Amino acid sequence: MDNLSKVKSIIVKKSLKLDCGKEISNFPLAYETYGKLNEKRDNAILVFHALTGDQYASGKNPVTNKDGWWSYAVGPGKAFDTNKFFVICANVIGGCMGSYGPSTIDPNTKKPLGTDFPVITINDMVNAQYNLLEFFEIEKLFAVAGGSMGGMQVLQFVSNFPNKAKVALPIACTASHSAQNIAFNELGRQAIMSDSNWKDGLYEEKNNNPDKGLAVARMAAHITYLSKKGLQEKFGRKLQERSDLKFGFDADFQIESYLRYQGSVFVDRFDANSYLYITRAMDYFDLTKKFNGNLSKAFEKTKTKFFVISFTSDWLYPTSENRDIVISLNAIGAEVSFVEIKSDKGHDSFLLDIPDFLNTIKNYLNATFLELNETRI
Amino acid sequence: MDNLSKVKSIIVKKSLKLDCGKEISNFPLAYETYGKLNEKRDNAILVFHALTGDQYASGKNPVTNKDGWWSYAVGPGKAFDTNKFFVICANVIGGCMGSYGPSTIDPNTKKPLGTDFPVITINDMVNAQYNLLEFFEIEKLFAVAGGSMGGMQVLQFVSNFPNKAKVALPIACTASHSAQNIAFNELGRQAIMSDSNWKDGLYEEKNNNPDKGLAVARMAAHITYLSKKGLQEKFGRKLQERSDLKFGFDADFQIESYLRYQGSVFVDRFDANSYLYITRAMDYFDLTKKFNGNLSKAFEKTKTKFFVISFTSDWLYPTSENRDIVISLNAIGAEVSFVEIKSDKGHDSFLLDIPDFLNTIKNYLNATFLELNETRI
Repeated sequence: MDNLSKVKSIIVKKSLKLDCGKEISNFPLAYETYGKLNEKRDNAILVFHALTGDQYASGKNPVTNKDGWWSYAVGPGKAFDTNKFFVICANVIGGCMGSYGPSTIDPNTKKPLGTDFPVITINDMVNAQYNLLEFFEIEKLFAVAGGSMGGMQVLQFVSNFPNKAKVALPIACTASHSAQNIAFNELGRQAIMSDSNWKDGLYEEKNNNPDKGLAVARMAAHITYLSKKGLQEKFGRKLQERSDLKFGFDADFQIESYLRYQGSVFVDRFDANSYLYITRAMDYFDLTKKFNGNLSKAFEKTKTKFFVISFTSDWLYPTSENRDIVISLNAIGAEVSFVEIKSDKGHDSFLLDIPDFLNTIKNYLNATFLELNETRI
Repeated sequence: MDNLSKVKSIIVKKSLKLDCGKEISNFPLAYETYGKLNEKRDNAILVFHALTGDQYASGKNPVTNKDGWWSYAVGPGKAFDTNKFFVICANVIGGCMGSYGPSTIDPNTKKPLGTDFPVITINDMVNAQYNLLEFFEIEKLFAVAGGSMGGMQVLQFVSNFPNKAKVALPIACTASHSAQNIAFNELGRQAIMSDSNWKDGLYEEKNNNPDKGLAVARMAAHITYLSKKGLQEKFGRKLQERSDLKFGFDADFQIESYLRYQGSVFVDRFDANSYLYITRAMDYFDLTKKFNGNLSKAFEKTKTKFFVISFTSDWLYPTSENRDIVISLNAIGAEVSFVEIKSDKGHDSFLLDIPDFLNTIKNYLNATFLELNETRI
C-alpha cells in the first residue's frame, strides 16, 4: 500500500495483553474522524468496520481514492449525521491501513511482520480501540455502531466496557460465528495459503504478492454478501459483452466478469495476511461461549440501549442470529429495539443506500440523543 | 488416475456434433452396469451422475477402491432394485474416469488433450450416452434418473428423446443454472486456473498437478452441498483434537479439518481440467432459454411420466427451482408427481441414506414398473 503516510494514527503506548497471551505496546492505531466533538464531549460515535473495511468510513479514502465504505450512512445530514455527531473510526489491529498488523515493518528485520504478527481476536481489536476514548478525552461515547464484524465489535465493546456507550447498534451480525461462517472464511484462507506466492506469509516484494489466492478469497466472500435472489435479479444469466456463449473459459456471464473484477480490485487495496488474521478473529468470535453459553451475562452490567438491525435476505448473518442477541437482552430486561429491514441485497445491505435502513438509524440516533442528553436543539 | 485399465467402455464410432460446433467420433464412453437386462429388455434404468461422480454408482469403485456414489440407492432390494432393474451408468464426456475428456491422451502428441478438449454441454453429454441404448439393444428405457447435474441430464434426455424413457426422475436439480450457481462454479474454476501448476491446462506430470487449486474448488463446492443448519448440527464450533484455540492458522475447528480433508481426498480421484469442463457444462445449462423461455415446450412431445424430487434444506437447487419444472409439466398436462423430502442435509441429501427419499423412489419405481409394463410378478 502506498500513500500510507497520509494516514492519521495514535501510538498506543500502554501495554495491551492479547487473548493469545502476548503483550503489545507502542503500536500504531490508524483512525479518521468526521464532524466535531462538542463542548460537552458527549456526541461521539465510535464506528467499527467490517472485514475488509478501514478507518475511512466516509469521504474520499486518501489511500485508495475511493469513497469511504459507509459513505451512504456517515456524513452531514446522513444517518450518522456529522452535523450533530463526532464520528470516529479506526482501522482494526490486524488490518492494513496503518494500524498494527502483519504488514507493519518489523524494526529489527526491516521486513513486514507477516505471520510473526500474533493471532488477534475481536476482543483485542476492541481493547485496542478503547484507547481512542482517552486520546479524545471522551468520558462516555454517545454510541458504538457497526455492521458485520463491526457489529461483533459493538457487542464486545459493550460487554467489555458496560458504562462507556449510551447506545449500541449491532447491525447484521452474530454473537457466535457459525460453522458455515467459519467454512467460508477457511475457504478464503486456504485460497491464500495455497498461492505459491504466499510463502508462509513471508511475501514482501511488490509484484510477488499472493494476489491470485487473495482474489479467489474475495470472490468467495463476495458471493456470501449477496442474496441468491439479488444475484438473479442483478445478473441472472446475462452475457458479458457478447451475444452468445463462446465455448471457452473466459467470462461469458456478467456474474463471472463481476466476480473477477471484485477479486482484481480488492488485491490492490488489501493485504493477504491481514485477510488471514481478520477472518481468524471473526471465526474465534463466540461471545456466548465466553459467558458459558449464556449470552445475557455478557450484557448484564450495562445500561446501554441496544438497537439491533438485520436484513431479510442476509444469509451470512441471518435475522435468526440477530434475534438471538435481542432475546439475550430481553432476558435481562435490557433496553433493546429490533428491526428487520426488507431488502433483496443480502448481507451487503448494511453498506448500501437503503432508505428504510438509513432513515431508521437517523431517526433513532437523533431522537435518542435528544432523549438521553436532555438537551433540545 | 491409475487403474483406468479396469474400466469398461464402448467406443462411440458415430460422429457426434457438439453444441460448440465441433464433431467428435471414435471416442470412448466408460460405463458400468448393475443387475440384469431382462428378456423383454424393458427393465433398464439409465442413471446420470453429478459433477464429481462417475459410472460407479454402486459397489466398489475399482479405481478409487471406495463405495460407489449412489451405493445407498442402487443395489439388490434398494431404491433402484438391481434384483428387478438393469441399471446403467456412464461417465460423462468431459469426465476423467475413462470417458472422452481433457485427460484423454491425444494420439498425435501422446499428451493429455487438456484445454484442446472442446467445451461440452449437458446436451452433448446426454447425446453421447444415448449410444448406450444401441449398444445394449434397448428400444426404450424404463427410466432415466439422476440428482443435481444428473437431474439436468434427465431433463435434457427426455427433451432430446421424448420416446425413449417411460419414467424420468430429476432429483434436486434445476432447468436453468442460476447466477449464484454460476458464481460458485466460477469461483472453483478461478481457484484452479490461479494455481501456478495449472499452466493453461497443460499440466501432465503426476506430481505437478494443480491440486491446491482443485482442493480449494472442492471446498467451495462442498460448502454449498451442506445446509447451514446441517453444518451447525454436525460441526458447530467443535474443536479438532484440542481443548482450546491454538491462535494459529492450523485447523482449530472440526469444520476446517473436514473441509481440508474433503479437498485433499478429492484431488486423488479427480482431474482439474475435468472440473473446469463439467462446471462449464452446468453453467451453460438453460433448457428454459433453449425453448425461448417456455420450459413446457421442452417436454411437449413426450409421454414420459415425471417424478420430481427436492429437499427442504437444499439451497443450491432449492425446491422452488424444482417446482418450476413441475409447473412447466403441469402446464402441458404431462404426468408428473412431485415430493419435497424433509432433510437438514442440504443438497447432499440425494446421495445419503435418507429413508423417506429412498423408500419413495423404491415404491414409485416398483409400482410404476408393474403398472406400465402390465406384468404381475
